[in-house]
Amino acid sequence: MKTQVAIIGGGPSGLLLSQLLNKAGVATVILERSTRDHVLSRIRAGILEWGTVDLLREAGVGARMDAEGFPHDGCFLTDADMKVRIDFKELTGKQVMVYGQTEVTQDLYAAQDAMGTTIIHGVEDVTLNDLERAGSYVEYTLNGQRQRIDCDYIAGCDGFHGVSRKTIPEEKRREFERVYPFGWLGVLSRTRPADDELIYANSPHGFALASMRNAQLSRYYIQVPLTDKPEDWSDDAFWTELKRRLPSEVAATMETGPSIEKSIAPLRSFVSEPLRWGNLFLVGDAAHIVPPTGAKGLNLAASDVFYLYQALIEALKGNTSGIDAYSELALRRIWKAMRFSWQMTTMLHRFEGEDSFSEQMRRATLDHLAHSETARRELAENYIGLPF
Amino acid sequence: MKTQVAIIGGGPSGLLLSQLLNKAGVATVILERSTRDHVLSRIRAGILEWGTVDLLREAGVGARMDAEGFPHDGCFLTDADMKVRIDFKELTGKQVMVYGQTEVTQDLYAAQDAMGTTIIHGVEDVTLNDLERAGSYVEYTLNGQRQRIDCDYIAGCDGFHGVSRKTIPEEKRREFERVYPFGWLGVLSRTRPADDELIYANSPHGFALASMRNAQLSRYYIQVPLTDKPEDWSDDAFWTELKRRLPSEVAATMETGPSIEKSIAPLRSFVSEPLRWGNLFLVGDAAHIVPPTGAKGLNLAASDVFYLYQALIEALKGNTSGIDAYSELALRRIWKAMRFSWQMTTMLHRFEGEDSFSEQMRRATLDHLAHSETARRELAENYIGLPF
Repeated sequence: MKTQVAIIGGGPSGLLLSQLLNKAGVATVILERSTRDHVLSRIRAGILEWGTVDLLREAGVGARMDAEGFPHDGCFLTDADMKVRIDFKELTGKQVMVYGQTEVTQDLYAAQDAMGTTIIHGVEDVTLNDLERAGSYVEYTLNGQRQRIDCDYIAGCDGFHGVSRKTIPEEKRREFERVYPFGWLGVLSRTRPADDELIYANSPHGFALASMRNAQLSRYYIQVPLTDKPEDWSDDAFWTELKRRLPSEVAATMETGPSIEKSIAPLRSFVSEPLRWGNLFLVGDAAHIVPPTGAKGLNLAASDVFYLYQALIEALKGNTSGIDAYSELALRRIWKAMRFSWQMTTMLHRFEGEDSFSEQMRRATLDHLAHSETARRELAENYIGLPF
Repeated sequence: MKTQVAIIGGGPSGLLLSQLLNKAGVATVILERSTRDHVLSRIRAGILEWGTVDLLREAGVGARMDAEGFPHDGCFLTDADMKVRIDFKELTGKQVMVYGQTEVTQDLYAAQDAMGTTIIHGVEDVTLNDLERAGSYVEYTLNGQRQRIDCDYIAGCDGFHGVSRKTIPEEKRREFERVYPFGWLGVLSRTRPADDELIYANSPHGFALASMRNAQLSRYYIQVPLTDKPEDWSDDAFWTELKRRLPSEVAATMETGPSIEKSIAPLRSFVSEPLRWGNLFLVGDAAHIVPPTGAKGLNLAASDVFYLYQALIEALKGNTSGIDAYSELALRRIWKAMRFSWQMTTMLHRFEGEDSFSEQMRRATLDHLAHSETARRELAENYIGLPF
């Protein structure tokens, strides 16, 4: 088989890239290890930056998001008695969109189907070959048969555990990592959300986040030790702990109910540089992971796609300046989002063994936000997403 | 002897408080351990926030500062190839004033002399007594004689090692501390400053600061391990290391010369709460220490004085609401300055044993400042001083 851009990974970043390239007449093939149902079963946050929203519209997949998504004008940061609203709309003129990653993925599949693009599920043993010269190709096994795709470029959209990043020789990349000494225990429940907007709660007992998928579906998180397991937490224990960490007036009126899903995710900051090796370009989680505080994961994948799809279109026409600049351009924005996610994480979590000064710094930061419009604007501009 | 407010400590905060109180007709006595010459020999930074400048003018000691001080419209933050200017004037409409702490102290002594206030030097064994009821008094030894001053209120302006804070029973105060694993090696030299404005330099070799006292007198600092001693650093070694850390175009043209003074200061964040115990009120370094990054030490003492002098005047007229609020009001601003100083320190220094992610966060912060006017404004508003 032959194509122009082979895309490794059929999650939202691979699908979005394929969608934008195909709209511009570029031929792509997506290779995905899992079934479509499995891809769609992954539960992920769904806070879309305004730039991501625009890009999804540009890709022709904005209709259902615009109809069913929830634009949010702000969010809350709290610490026991303190409560600060960050008014995105007033501070930046922009909003974010609450629309689950699963929904985005579903819309992208539907659009790809409508366009008749090629998505091959169930591939195994993918290898990327001859990346440093013309004539690059991808091999994979499907139903026991070894297959080959010749291509001009390869986009590695296959996540942290995928083959793409690992194909780049170790001596050709530099990795940066910070692992946080706690995880997020997340619970999904068919309950009315505690508030119309997200509440990021610092507390003497640790961090909590009250978020939602829609008006009937709530998504809550609490910071837990990495040694905890989901089965250690009964629903009752979870709700009790969550309420301890949220402002009392929120806890007093919030609806609780049985959990639909319960899981623990570790928090990690990770970047692998550069994003390009020959004809291979890394996109999204394949090259970088952010802790979920600040909801930058999917949005960073979207900005990578934004930089890359235009560069690839130009490159296929013979102008390679865009692909030459891709890694540096994308990384500058990635590092800023890393900084913001790290800062939000540090500002909102208790670290085991920390000194008493740390807690005071968290409270002083919140107090400063309460009294400084500039500080709130700085947070809002990062939250709604720095410009591409 | 009898007075209305006994002031322990004749450094700039005690003098400024005395000046403002006496101008309002309140009787004070300042007790100072050292001689006037010794007080004036202490070399300290001299970046005055606009609020401090206004307060000095209000105290009637602004004339020489306005004539001889250097208003600065901005400063630079650098990291090897990156250089970001923070334009205070454009971002906030305000400036800072470069005018040495020694000069401020000298002006205050002159003004106090002109007003004929009481400053007693050379006191020993100061004790503060009966602080929790009417009839508080101070005892001290002067020339071998035990003396007593009866007073309404006592202001503890006697610094970190002074008796005032220690007089508050340990169970009545809460201390917060963070000690940084490095110090600042400072060199004063009779050379033309490297730039008209301050340069805060991050570098792979650690932090450096290029500052000045006036057009002929430079003050430079480099981050060094706490185990270093000033005598470990020859002038040559100092200049070589400083130039390594400053942007190359600055290093290439800067004037060097023999050091006039060379010393190492540790960096510490420290707060003792509350600031009031009965009739005793803590001011400045007696209650809180900031690392010098951001130059908040003297300025925080000034804002404490600002809150306290008005409150004391009111209290002596019978309205105690001001002194009742003093501790909380002053502490809110103190904690914000603590936050800023800690953030500036973290953003600009290498920490031994840090991971590679830390350096990336410092560079990302600078890159974000370079591209976000809001981020620069947030830094500028804190640097020129949050409103009292």
